[in-house]
Amino acid sequence: MASNSFGNIFRITTWGESHGKAVGVVIDGCPAGVQLDETDINTALALRAPGNNQYTSPRKEPDKAEIYSGVFEGKTTGAPISIIIMNKDADSSKYEPIKHLLRPGHANYTYIEKYGCFDHRGGGRASARETACRVAAGAVASKILQEHNIQVISYMKSIGDQKLELNPLTTDNLKLASQNSPIFCPDTVAEKNMMNAIEIAKNEGDSLGGIVEFIVLNMPVGLGDPIYEKLEANLAKAMMSLPASKGVELGEGFHSAHMRGSEHNDEFSAGETITSTNHAGGTLAGISTGMPLIGRVAFKPTSSIKKPQNTIDAEGVEQKFVLPEGSRHDPCVAIRAVPIVEAMCALVLVDALLMNKGSKI
Amino acid sequence: MASNSFGNIFRITTWGESHGKAVGVVIDGCPAGVQLDETDINTALALRAPGNNQYTSPRKEPDKAEIYSGVFEGKTTGAPISIIIMNKDADSSKYEPIKHLLRPGHANYTYIEKYGCFDHRGGGRASARETACRVAAGAVASKILQEHNIQVISYMKSIGDQKLELNPLTTDNLKLASQNSPIFCPDTVAEKNMMNAIEIAKNEGDSLGGIVEFIVLNMPVGLGDPIYEKLEANLAKAMMSLPASKGVELGEGFHSAHMRGSEHNDEFSAGETITSTNHAGGTLAGISTGMPLIGRVAFKPTSSIKKPQNTIDAEGVEQKFVLPEGSRHDPCVAIRAVPIVEAMCALVLVDALLMNKGSKI
Amino acid sequence: MASNSFGNIFRITTWGESHGKAVGVVIDGCPAGVQLDETDINTALALRAPGNNQYTSPRKEPDKAEIYSGVFEGKTTGAPISIIIMNKDADSSKYEPIKHLLRPGHANYTYIEKYGCFDHRGGGRASARETACRVAAGAVASKILQEHNIQVISYMKSIGDQKLELNPLTTDNLKLASQNSPIFCPDTVAEKNMMNAIEIAKNEGDSLGGIVEFIVLNMPVGLGDPIYEKLEANLAKAMMSLPASKGVELGEGFHSAHMRGSEHNDEFSAGETITSTNHAGGTLAGISTGMPLIGRVAFKPTSSIKKPQNTIDAEGVEQKFVLPEGSRHDPCVAIRAVPIVEAMCALVLVDALLMNKGSKI
Amino acid sequence: MASNSFGNIFRITTWGESHGKAVGVVIDGCPAGVQLDETDINTALALRAPGNNQYTSPRKEPDKAEIYSGVFEGKTTGAPISIIIMNKDADSSKYEPIKHLLRPGHANYTYIEKYGCFDHRGGGRASARETACRVAAGAVASKILQEHNIQVISYMKSIGDQKLELNPLTTDNLKLASQNSPIFCPDTVAEKNMMNAIEIAKNEGDSLGGIVEFIVLNMPVGLGDPIYEKLEANLAKAMMSLPASKGVELGEGFHSAHMRGSEHNDEFSAGETITSTNHAGGTLAGISTGMPLIGRVAFKPTSSIKKPQNTIDAEGVEQKFVLPEGSRHDPCVAIRAVPIVEAMCALVLVDALLMNKGSKI
Repeated sequence: MASNSFGNIFRITTWGESHGKAVGVVIDGCPAGVQLDETDINTALALRAPGNNQYTSPRKEPDKAEIYSGVFEGKTTGAPISIIIMNKDADSSKYEPIKHLLRPGHANYTYIEKYGCFDHRGGGRASARETACRVAAGAVASKILQEHNIQVISYMKSIGDQKLELNPLTTDNLKLASQNSPIFCPDTVAEKNMMNAIEIAKNEGDSLGGIVEFIVLNMPVGLGDPIYEKLEANLAKAMMSLPASKGVELGEGFHSAHMRGSEHNDEFSAGETITSTNHAGGTLAGISTGMPLIGRVAFKPTSSIKKPQNTIDAEGVEQKFVLPEGSRHDPCVAIRAVPIVEAMCALVLVDALLMNKGSKI
Repeated sequence: MASNSFGNIFRITTWGESHGKAVGVVIDGCPAGVQLDETDINTALALRAPGNNQYTSPRKEPDKAEIYSGVFEGKTTGAPISIIIMNKDADSSKYEPIKHLLRPGHANYTYIEKYGCFDHRGGGRASARETACRVAAGAVASKILQEHNIQVISYMKSIGDQKLELNPLTTDNLKLASQNSPIFCPDTVAEKNMMNAIEIAKNEGDSLGGIVEFIVLNMPVGLGDPIYEKLEANLAKAMMSLPASKGVELGEGFHSAHMRGSEHNDEFSAGETITSTNHAGGTLAGISTGMPLIGRVAFKPTSSIKKPQNTIDAEGVEQKFVLPEGSRHDPCVAIRAVPIVEAMCALVLVDALLMNKGSKI
Repeated sequence: MASNSFGNIFRITTWGESHGKAVGVVIDGCPAGVQLDETDINTALALRAPGNNQYTSPRKEPDKAEIYSGVFEGKTTGAPISIIIMNKDADSSKYEPIKHLLRPGHANYTYIEKYGCFDHRGGGRASARETACRVAAGAVASKILQEHNIQVISYMKSIGDQKLELNPLTTDNLKLASQNSPIFCPDTVAEKNMMNAIEIAKNEGDSLGGIVEFIVLNMPVGLGDPIYEKLEANLAKAMMSLPASKGVELGEGFHSAHMRGSEHNDEFSAGETITSTNHAGGTLAGISTGMPLIGRVAFKPTSSIKKPQNTIDAEGVEQKFVLPEGSRHDPCVAIRAVPIVEAMCALVLVDALLMNKGSKI
Repeated sequence: MASNSFGNIFRITTWGESHGKAVGVVIDGCPAGVQLDETDINTALALRAPGNNQYTSPRKEPDKAEIYSGVFEGKTTGAPISIIIMNKDADSSKYEPIKHLLRPGHANYTYIEKYGCFDHRGGGRASARETACRVAAGAVASKILQEHNIQVISYMKSIGDQKLELNPLTTDNLKLASQNSPIFCPDTVAEKNMMNAIEIAKNEGDSLGGIVEFIVLNMPVGLGDPIYEKLEANLAKAMMSLPASKGVELGEGFHSAHMRGSEHNDEFSAGETITSTNHAGGTLAGISTGMPLIGRVAFKPTSSIKKPQNTIDAEGVEQKFVLPEGSRHDPCVAIRAVPIVEAMCALVLVDALLMNKGSKI
């Protein structure tokens, strides 16, 4: 079943394996007339790039996206935009010794069962490398959001037990502060605590989970379609399609289950904003209220750890699973997820903007 | 934009307003040969029916579904199955006085902004009544799951701060215990605590939120498609499309963000089950492992409360919002959500079963 | 596989069997604010109704559509519009004796092979009765087209070897002339010839094929999307999804294969119309030019004939197939197809109008 | 609106402009385990390549497809298959002088109206070059059809008034005979007549239309889904999405409108084939009967001709349109369409095969 596309009107299709020739994305349904060049995309990719600091995997992965179609004289034409990122640094030989072992927390068991085969080189299609394509597509979506003055920001909310306490609405230059941090944490104290936590886990050959928060400013009212295309439903699908994500929530989210109606209801107001509070996180009945959209995504700790683990091989015999010498992996996959969450949010919003065009005669 | 359908191959389309003539669902893509009669559907609807106890809204709502098409000589034919539930008890007059007020936590503001109109009678399309159609469709999906011996169970995990502590895998007759409870709580002590909490909130004219857990036993391996049709992505969309849901998680969910990789990874085992633990909640990389699928959905407290609330009217003038005399509403919307969560889970699984058929040549 | 829906943004889903309780359609994606009542739909259905004259099947089929949802205070609300037509006159007993015979030209063989069952009562889902739902949905689409001043007209182009010669662009009141004719033929001489031809075939227990032409006036430029959602591609799908249709063409159609480029090319002009001729039939590269859209659909002769035919039964034994006494069938199915072609054209156009909204930033 | 994808389960998405960097296709939903290498694709592309003879455009277009993803150790993996064909020979300068003129029979007018821009270099996205991607994807589909022993053949049925008379069912090596002809005509006499006709038109600076026939041998029964996903409906959409196609028909097609029911009905038989004749062309009610599928597609004469034509420029001023010196174009676009028709047929069939998998429980 075709399963590599996302979106209704603004639809992306991604392809490519971690250690194949390239990964790429085709963006179909982008309106004509959007100013776009490769710098827009490569700037976004650079933020996601690992290797800039010790907290993400130090693989050299100089992602350089090229636009192959859909742009003419600096603007989109309405034709599909094909973006390709060639793969480099793809020494697959180190995966050979472990290719018959089921990797705890990884895709190879389920892929083999489903497809009868698995591209073990770097995870193949199941690699997080696919998310580079989401970031590239998200950069295109962001160009459209900019025309509407809509701003999507994401940042690290917690790593392990270290949590960011900050009001995103009253923080100056939240986006910049997030992007300036090697772990996308807009507060220097929290950043330091998170980094320490990572350091400790890393030294123990272990990994940490984390929570990424996203917020959208200058949201228009009316985005999202009722029932099965609710804005929160599509956001939830977007976020839970990310590797390693295990939960998603909007507004007060799981905490709302512990609140009372009189606390949680956002009263409508004649003041500057349509509601005086924003427990809902920016939607009512699946449609945006115009208040900031705010939500969170939980990421499990990285599955690839240095500690030896028990497992079985393809024949069902018990084995020890030990990462090959020289393997480099993120001690906290949530860090690299920050720009990807932002990209997915942008994709959902642009699709919702376009879906909204035919709502009234 | 068409937004009232869910599913790829097994696809439902729902229609109807709370106080219109009827609500209904068309199920398209159901395989031929499934034994089905109206009792299957009405049994499922009865479980969802309010009015059976004081903890859900006491409206008389004798939901009686009729099958209008797609079944011949007791079996499905491959043709679309149209199920219709006629509406009764639809006195809309009490909504007249409040029709120009924005209702805190409700759909009318966003619908008016999006569509320029709102069917204020009982919430119109935005009413939870739409979910009766999901339950009806879920009953059909469950018939297919039964042929594969797959069992979906849902139950109340918490209401307010009262929580159920129970291992679903070692609980006998979990489904029965859940269905026998007026609040779908399979443990009598927890049930009593939850009921008390509701009673207190209700007496104060307030409402409570809650968390619903779902578990799927006898899961086959291989369900779910990579990248954007991951099993967890479609479950997340399904659950976040429910009225009042604010969060969804799988396996350890948000808690996984506080775990270490060595704790969270489920080691593969040569024993009875493919992994010795199940922190992942039954999927790896979007595809089912064969372990029980387990997850949770958070519901906000019911928006309709007896306490007066501040709001504005259509002209933006500040007003008090007071529920009309005689309004009857659930003090905890999560209770009615329990069978709906089960239905959505069944719909996702049947679609995944059918999507899986073409995975190998 | 779900296969009972048509359209991308304005999407219909039909359900129901010929001799079941009812047939119906759910229209999803209709913009809010369209004035609509049941008369709009029933007027369209009356045109399609058989039994008004001897040239179509004299079954009493007083189709009366009811709107069950999606309309509030006389206007569409953006919610799905459910339209239901209850079935009457459904004596299925006469089909009993022939239920084990494969009917030449009919659906029962292929349905049994595909689904393992067949609702033999009046053709079940494969009956032309499903097209009543298309006409009902087309009536809603036409209300939207009216807001854009777009007019869709269809009429009988030929029956057997009797052909209509008429320039649709210079014919006054073409629509009215077509609708006033019992066989939708806007010219009285051709009408008489066609009627005679039918009479002769009917008396011989036989049937005739026919060609239906459609034309759309006041077409806007820019409808239709490149490559796979070309206006002509969606029209072709729409028309070839009709029972008994065997061919579809646009503009000069098959005749264009016998023309030269210098004849066929429509030169652009500074005059009143964008091109001085219209061999293309109103599109270039899948997108409307603003010239009238014009095309034709070929219908095979009705499969149900009074003449005895050879066939086999379910066990493969040779048998004679004779229509049961009292069976009433159209001697020329193309007649009833005329309003259905118009409806399908309207559905394609409204979808194209909505799809076009996001083409430019 | 996303419009560059075709298919439900086996879905292709094409991208790229005639004079851009490359064209490509992503095939999503291909089952795992299909043996595939680049030779399979390049063999198919070579058949379509122009420049092999004087009857098609002599541009050097050494199409060389590369597989970028989805194949591992010689077999498909279930992941999307990305195929890229780099562009060469793209001197766009000769289009400069005519870029402000509306080209009769071409896309630039409608694209400019729809999108506000047009990539005039070689037709941009509207170029027939997009069809190379269809052929590449069709080659993959054919590999799957081979596993089912299904054979798709297409050939030239007529060019101008020169027609092929041949019974495709009794012709030995029909496929080979077609592929051996520079104009895909499996009969040497007809081939010579067609070539002469082209020569004459070409010498006059003009072009010819043509009709392509397709036939599918060893068809299984049961392919195609009722109502809107009928096999003939999807074939019609596929064929009418081709550049320059103006009509499509199945079986007797438009001729059936001139037949009687007693002539057209295919009687079921106890003999070797399920029906003794095959006027229907291999389907009943949208589902394949197991008889050979047979149909035809009409192509208009090539729009690019050497004769000067009247037109207007972007300001609406009347101008002469003359093809730039050195322009090379096909005198009969139908010739190059032959392998494309075959490819589209293969794509529809594979999708139908996969869609059929869930028809029975």
